[in-house]
Amino acid sequence: MAAQRLVVIGGDAAGMSAASQARRFRGPEELEIIAFERGHFSSYSACGIPYWVGGQVQDRDALIARTPAEHRERGIGLRTRTEVTEIDVARGRVRARDLESGTEGWTSYDQLVIATGARPAVPRVPGIGAPEVHGVQTLDDGQALLDTLAAVPGRRAVVVGAGYIGVEMAEALLNRGFEVTVLNRGEQPMSTLDPDMGRLVHTAMDGLGITTVNGAEVTAVLTGPDGRVRAVRAREADGERAYPADVVVLGTGVEPHTTLARAAGLPLGASGGLLTDRAMRVRGHENVYAGGDCVEVLDLVSGRERYVPLGTHANKHGQIIGANIGGGYATFPGVVGTAVSKVCDLEIARTGLREKDAAAVGLRFVTVTVESTGRAGYYPGAAPMTVKMLAELRTGRLLGVQIVGRDGAAKRVDVAAVALTAGMTVEAMTALDLGYAPPFSPVWDPILIAARKAVAAVREAAG
Amino acid sequence: MAAQRLVVIGGDAAGMSAASQARRFRGPEELEIIAFERGHFSSYSACGIPYWVGGQVQDRDALIARTPAEHRERGIGLRTRTEVTEIDVARGRVRARDLESGTEGWTSYDQLVIATGARPAVPRVPGIGAPEVHGVQTLDDGQALLDTLAAVPGRRAVVVGAGYIGVEMAEALLNRGFEVTVLNRGEQPMSTLDPDMGRLVHTAMDGLGITTVNGAEVTAVLTGPDGRVRAVRAREADGERAYPADVVVLGTGVEPHTTLARAAGLPLGASGGLLTDRAMRVRGHENVYAGGDCVEVLDLVSGRERYVPLGTHANKHGQIIGANIGGGYATFPGVVGTAVSKVCDLEIARTGLREKDAAAVGLRFVTVTVESTGRAGYYPGAAPMTVKMLAELRTGRLLGVQIVGRDGAAKRVDVAAVALTAGMTVEAMTALDLGYAPPFSPVWDPILIAARKAVAAVREAAG
Repeated sequence: MAAQRLVVIGGDAAGMSAASQARRFRGPEELEIIAFERGHFSSYSACGIPYWVGGQVQDRDALIARTPAEHRERGIGLRTRTEVTEIDVARGRVRARDLESGTEGWTSYDQLVIATGARPAVPRVPGIGAPEVHGVQTLDDGQALLDTLAAVPGRRAVVVGAGYIGVEMAEALLNRGFEVTVLNRGEQPMSTLDPDMGRLVHTAMDGLGITTVNGAEVTAVLTGPDGRVRAVRAREADGERAYPADVVVLGTGVEPHTTLARAAGLPLGASGGLLTDRAMRVRGHENVYAGGDCVEVLDLVSGRERYVPLGTHANKHGQIIGANIGGGYATFPGVVGTAVSKVCDLEIARTGLREKDAAAVGLRFVTVTVESTGRAGYYPGAAPMTVKMLAELRTGRLLGVQIVGRDGAAKRVDVAAVALTAGMTVEAMTALDLGYAPPFSPVWDPILIAARKAVAAVREAAG
Repeated sequence: MAAQRLVVIGGDAAGMSAASQARRFRGPEELEIIAFERGHFSSYSACGIPYWVGGQVQDRDALIARTPAEHRERGIGLRTRTEVTEIDVARGRVRARDLESGTEGWTSYDQLVIATGARPAVPRVPGIGAPEVHGVQTLDDGQALLDTLAAVPGRRAVVVGAGYIGVEMAEALLNRGFEVTVLNRGEQPMSTLDPDMGRLVHTAMDGLGITTVNGAEVTAVLTGPDGRVRAVRAREADGERAYPADVVVLGTGVEPHTTLARAAGLPLGASGGLLTDRAMRVRGHENVYAGGDCVEVLDLVSGRERYVPLGTHANKHGQIIGANIGGGYATFPGVVGTAVSKVCDLEIARTGLREKDAAAVGLRFVTVTVESTGRAGYYPGAAPMTVKMLAELRTGRLLGVQIVGRDGAAKRVDVAAVALTAGMTVEAMTALDLGYAPPFSPVWDPILIAARKAVAAVREAAG
């Protein structure tokens, strides 16, 4: 009998990283680990689902880093198809239901990890429950969508939402031979970018044959007498319109899946995510940790809590939680808001604050936008790249960078992510010793060109 | 008549950037600008020459950012085919010879920019002057090599030296259909990397069909009775050997071209490069600036002066010199030693200190090496990437990173370059918010994986 019991709710990145890391620190004789997962799978790459649906990744199992059986071999008592229905913080126990048998019971814990992830923000409109309407959060979702794609007679797909998931799914459906229409509530696709940069994405999507409708608020999914999807209706500035559809994919973004935490009285932030301290302990609860897509994180640039559901953070959280439970010491300092994505060969990246984020925390700033290329202009394959940079007035501190371009555009944002973390000024950035060779960069890297222009803008604004 | 005269020696990156920037600040009525260039061309990308020779860049003129005529239109009195033969610092004048007419005369200056660049470190061996032996420093060199490649009857090429120029020229000659042998004096190719990382480059070059001979010191270029190259002889550990050759390319690295500066009594460093202050003024000379491949720069990691001839630094130097001459204020803080290159699809990158550099300045450190991929393992095209990281003992400060891999390997080094500039510890690096999406990175970026391993190594070494 182990001295202590760790219970983990959620069998994906944060939860299972925490369990695995705790296990590395402490053996089964010291720490029993029980993990509950509602679905069939564990430790998989949800971010990989669009590429599996799109056919670049052939095999679903390639997305699985570690199967339930592999976790069990490592001494983690993972119970799949088991849903936690209640957290009883006062008595240190959770209630779980076996989804196959329906049996339900309490399991006590000494330490708890809440890693319940995110759920799609599903529009509450008529017809949304039709069988050809799919979210893509889990492997089960992905399989269901693939089954629909194989079964539907037509080739018209409507994607609701034009964020990361929306544009990635638009590419996936295009690759599967569908005509794709993206219905976007916002002014431009990719609302994680400023609209001027989102417009570049829109233009590129047009070029790829993806129809994007901006300012379109979905009001209903229309079904036929057989119950099958026929169209998606949306309200636009000039009235309502119906977009014929054989399949509908929800790329409407996600929200923290914190129903249990809320019911248990745990502290939630403005986005509905759990609030933790730097060691990823739920605030005010010494033995309850939370991480991954169900928590809010500190934005190091704005100084505010934000909701940033990303696999890379979830994995870091899991490692940190596991180390702390295991008796080590680790903390998560926060994020700067880096995200990269692509639609076909168009690369999209951002880090730090958008204009509206900076304004929201009272920062005054300049913005500059430069056009450059990812390689020396004369080198084959050199393609345009647009870099937008925000810098604080007077101090010249870097506040954010957005990039839209082709080969080599996305990961260039990492330079800005490190500079943001270090609190660099754009003037200091102009001297950065970045790698240069004609196949990889113009002699002035686009980031350096933007920084130089930002320096001039800061100086000019100072008068 | 302008109030002041600026004289620039050298018509490439540093010199013409300085001239152009100074012109932006001050018009012709305030500042006369005269620039002397020995060759036919101005403001070209010497780094692009291997790709022109290799055929990826079809047109020589694509490498020229601004022609002499364009400079003249902008009010810069550029005199090509004119060689400066003496600098008279005491009287503020330079002597120049028109290489066509042979006429020579003095030109006085109020401010001087020395941008004489680098010259190949040519091995002093018999036969080195044969017509099929080529350096690749200038466009004139590149054209001469292309003429030779078109004229020689055989297809055997020997490249002397396995640094950046050597490996890039090996690729270029391979692309032109030559059998390529690289004679390398060192233990492994790419001596700018530690030998364990150089070995990876060696293996990859083998795979490309490039023969690399390590530990080979060239002793002679052998010519036939017609004076044409037949072979290159090299001394190796087990004796001398001759490598048949129709053409020989010198990739033996370069040295600062500071003959004039030395004769003028200007201060030179251990590598023979000019020593400047942060404003790029030659030390002790208020009105003499120097930049580009003829100066030494401060290495921010070791705290020592180093010789780092790279176009990206030359351009920065030129901008800074021009701003200072123009009445602005700008400084060059130094470098961290970033360099990227490729041989076919193998990408090679480094920044900061190698093991021997760190040891040379008395630093004690740990090294770790990790294997990862540039994309999520399941994403098409994911290829191995090796990252080596050096961190200081006790403090855990990052000291250097070397990367060898495929798609996306080289520019990843920029993350480390910024971290070095910011003086980050490897522990701080583990929390960096780097861009993640399956086409661009595993969920743990290879740099993060290396940083995590380095943290463990620092801790372990502390006992």
